[in-house]
Amino acid sequence: CPCPLPSGDTALSRLVRRLLSARRSLDLCLFAFSCPQLARAVQLLHRRGVRVRLVTDAQYMGLHGSQIGRLRHSGIQVRHDQHSGYMHHKFAIVDQRVLITGSLNWTTQAIQSNRENVLVVEDADYVKAFLDEFERIWEEYNPANYTFF
Amino acid sequence: CPCPLPSGDTALSRLVRRLLSARRSLDLCLFAFSCPQLARAVQLLHRRGVRVRLVTDAQYMGLHGSQIGRLRHSGIQVRHDQHSGYMHHKFAIVDQRVLITGSLNWTTQAIQSNRENVLVVEDADYVKAFLDEFERIWEEYNPANYTFF
Repeated sequence: CPCPLPSGDTALSRLVRRLLSARRSLDLCLFAFSCPQLARAVQLLHRRGVRVRLVTDAQYMGLHGSQIGRLRHSGIQVRHDQHSGYMHHKFAIVDQRVLITGSLNWTTQAIQSNRENVLVVEDADYVKAFLDEFERIWEEYNPANYTFF
Repeated sequence: CPCPLPSGDTALSRLVRRLLSARRSLDLCLFAFSCPQLARAVQLLHRRGVRVRLVTDAQYMGLHGSQIGRLRHSGIQVRHDQHSGYMHHKFAIVDQRVLITGSLNWTTQAIQSNRENVLVVEDADYVKAFLDEFERIWEEYNPANYTFF
């Protein structure tokens, strides 16, 4: 594979390890997703039987380098917005218990070149607010609810 | 004034009220800053004698609608990065005690059109990590350290 999982103690490897700790579910709400190492971790979880759901932004999912097509192709459920505004969240929820959120888009540019922050939060009140937002968006972006013109 | 402070119970008005609770200091680390209502709140604090420091991204601070020039002109200390990568943080720290961070850029587009999150965190460990990052960046972007070619 051209993109092995990162090792050592970099911020990226710590993020990957947090994701790989998932045993039951991984809910992803990501504006942009082009980082191959993170996509590989998500695919691994899906293959292990973890329930992965992914919500993303319609305008960014087709950009060069986007991993969304590959993830969809591997059988992961992906939904996207239908708005002109951005679905600008960048968070993950592991096993409905650990929230990972911040300024970081899951792109190679962000990881390699930007100044960014990622918070890992286990406080139940914070996690619940993001879980509720995830479920709201997941329902709102259900293709069964699409409107056409 | 063309941009009164927002009232009522919108997410923007709650954010503004959090900022206006500052009594001693406001540290801002913002990728983009074009929202006039938020700029007005920051100027108000500066006029009240609160110590405002602002770090921003060099490539975004000159864009149409940016409030950075106006804030600088009113006497607020502003520093910016010198890199090709983005200074992509979007956080504020009130009185070294309350952290406000999330996906939200302080732009009118983000506030009006996007799906975004903002966390307000008072846990000292989280606040300290962001305070440390702010001080690191503030020193790193000190114009006295600029290199020219």
